[in-house]
Amino acid sequence: MKVAVLGYGTVGVGVYEMLCAAEGLEAGPVLVRPGKADTAFKVTEIQAIVADPTVDAVAEVMGGVEPAFSYAMAAIEAGKHFVTSNKALVAAKGVELNRAARAKGVAFLFSAACGGAIPFLHNLARAAETDTVLSCGGILNGTTNFMLDQMQGTGKDYADALKEAQALGYAEADPTADVTGLDALRKIMLACAAAWGVLPQEGLLNEGIDSLSAADVKDFMSRGLVCRLLASGRRAEDGRISAYVEPVLVGAGDAETAVLKNFNMARYVGQNSGSIAMIGQGAGRYPTASAVLRDLSGIAQGESAMFPAGCTYGAADNSAESHAYYVRLPKSCEDRLPVSEVLAECGDSVTVLTEPMSVSCMHTLAGEIRKNGNSLFFAAIRR
Amino acid sequence: MKVAVLGYGTVGVGVYEMLCAAEGLEAGPVLVRPGKADTAFKVTEIQAIVADPTVDAVAEVMGGVEPAFSYAMAAIEAGKHFVTSNKALVAAKGVELNRAARAKGVAFLFSAACGGAIPFLHNLARAAETDTVLSCGGILNGTTNFMLDQMQGTGKDYADALKEAQALGYAEADPTADVTGLDALRKIMLACAAAWGVLPQEGLLNEGIDSLSAADVKDFMSRGLVCRLLASGRRAEDGRISAYVEPVLVGAGDAETAVLKNFNMARYVGQNSGSIAMIGQGAGRYPTASAVLRDLSGIAQGESAMFPAGCTYGAADNSAESHAYYVRLPKSCEDRLPVSEVLAECGDSVTVLTEPMSVSCMHTLAGEIRKNGNSLFFAAIRR
Repeated sequence: MKVAVLGYGTVGVGVYEMLCAAEGLEAGPVLVRPGKADTAFKVTEIQAIVADPTVDAVAEVMGGVEPAFSYAMAAIEAGKHFVTSNKALVAAKGVELNRAARAKGVAFLFSAACGGAIPFLHNLARAAETDTVLSCGGILNGTTNFMLDQMQGTGKDYADALKEAQALGYAEADPTADVTGLDALRKIMLACAAAWGVLPQEGLLNEGIDSLSAADVKDFMSRGLVCRLLASGRRAEDGRISAYVEPVLVGAGDAETAVLKNFNMARYVGQNSGSIAMIGQGAGRYPTASAVLRDLSGIAQGESAMFPAGCTYGAADNSAESHAYYVRLPKSCEDRLPVSEVLAECGDSVTVLTEPMSVSCMHTLAGEIRKNGNSLFFAAIRR
Repeated sequence: MKVAVLGYGTVGVGVYEMLCAAEGLEAGPVLVRPGKADTAFKVTEIQAIVADPTVDAVAEVMGGVEPAFSYAMAAIEAGKHFVTSNKALVAAKGVELNRAARAKGVAFLFSAACGGAIPFLHNLARAAETDTVLSCGGILNGTTNFMLDQMQGTGKDYADALKEAQALGYAEADPTADVTGLDALRKIMLACAAAWGVLPQEGLLNEGIDSLSAADVKDFMSRGLVCRLLASGRRAEDGRISAYVEPVLVGAGDAETAVLKNFNMARYVGQNSGSIAMIGQGAGRYPTASAVLRDLSGIAQGESAMFPAGCTYGAADNSAESHAYYVRLPKSCEDRLPVSEVLAECGDSVTVLTEPMSVSCMHTLAGEIRKNGNSLFFAAIRR
């Protein structure tokens, strides 16, 4: 099977190298930006790939919704299998791509878009065929896990942890998608669609770690708690799907606390299988490329889809999910929360534990309180 | 796809129930012992299944090498896919079954034989197609993990931990295969064959937890160490394959310490993917049945093998693997070990730390020292 590659950045180079070494797979042309075609295997026009009858599959690792989506549709329409690591693309256009690929009888796979090297979506999709998936989620962003590990392990403050992550190549120059939880949110969107055939695009909530201070870390660690940024998806018995990302304080013995550095932990709970958790590197050239190659090898064995037939867009509803929250906020705003216990006071700010309250209510209140320039950090408390 | 089930014990009932509920799969006849065919779907003769042209696949969950092997070969020769949870069968006859199934063009899959609900062998086999697997292993026996968790968490002694495991149905009346490490050894044999195309049947070493005392637990826990029974497989650069099972003392922050109760943690390290660890229930009716069903669903998608074409039997060589060991033995035997430090003395016994020494040497010495009726416990120290 001959595979063309779209993009020749960090991941693209890894995919190309692995294709050259793999048995049963062959490296085809690589699409690069105009002016960058410095060797014979590089091309600058998508048509050179789409119109090439010797290309059986296209692996897209450029990132971004456009032009990736147009290229994907052109490849699928030309009867080529389509594999991608691009979570923004699949989160935005996954339903159309799934429909087009199924109509054309080609594969549409994207293991690398969620969990990096971890074969999560593949196994989740397969589990959904014969088991009932009750929930899914986990630590899906390696950049923020690295930063949390730094802040909690070495006492670094947020700015220093971010600098360290950037210096090591874990965080991009603009880290917004990572630190606000948007990146993890896109991944849980894909997992929901693989598990339940609904790709939620509305009602989603994401709180990141960009409000976390070194003082917060010191306080909750003194209480035996460790913070992880967790994505969560769940289908209630009435069919409603919740999907959100927020910091969670877990106990020191919980499995998530053993997930260090930039590692990810992706998990699903099946009615029959019970909890299946997978830990591995969530990003990086070769880990991500290895997931792209696994998908390509899967196509050769007949695998063709991660979203079920009839997968549709939908809305998440986070109003029925509830936990107690740990919240640091201005004293003047304390009465807006259902406080069960005041944990600490420091200057104008107070740290409280709330009564169990809905995820949607907590995220909404946080947004309102911050509107006036107030500083606030919150994290769910695991029951 | 219509699936016949061989065996109607703990797992067989789960497989049958899941087949009745699954879309795209249909429950066929179930083979039970003579005199046990109390309902219409049960049959007592394998021929009633093998000769039934409506049966597409056979799921064997009886256990034991015979008659399971004869039944498997008959099913394969009759052109039926063969799925099993039976690690003893695959460890003993996996090469013949792989060859016969490939010759006949049917599937031979056995996810449930290693890791229970964890989709380990499937992913390991797929990783081996496009990546180089460097090592594999982990916590592959839930019974002993439960016992270790009990001994380390509650201070129970070995006999009480075993009784508790038996009372909860985690250990069988004859727990030998579990507590000696033989069960975990069979699983790592399968993993080696999936990763490297060699099913080792000689040179294997297994040390279990049956020599572990409450005093040992108290001692190493006071040193901040936790014991897990780990299976290990590795292919050296010269192509030699090591495969063994032994207790390992890990640090309190290591990921294995978060694997509690009867859970398993199966892991492989790929050259490109890095470490991929998977945690889930290693046994039980529905977890194991869920793995059988995943395999059956995989067949419908074109998956057909976990061992590569040309997979052969071979020998393991554990002479080049080396660690320091923690050993409790009679004082009179201390000089037979390369002792680096005496940790404790108590009556006639002494607890020592060794210099790094080969796995084969440690296991051989332990066997020799025990021949005279001496009591000895050893565990590798993770570097």
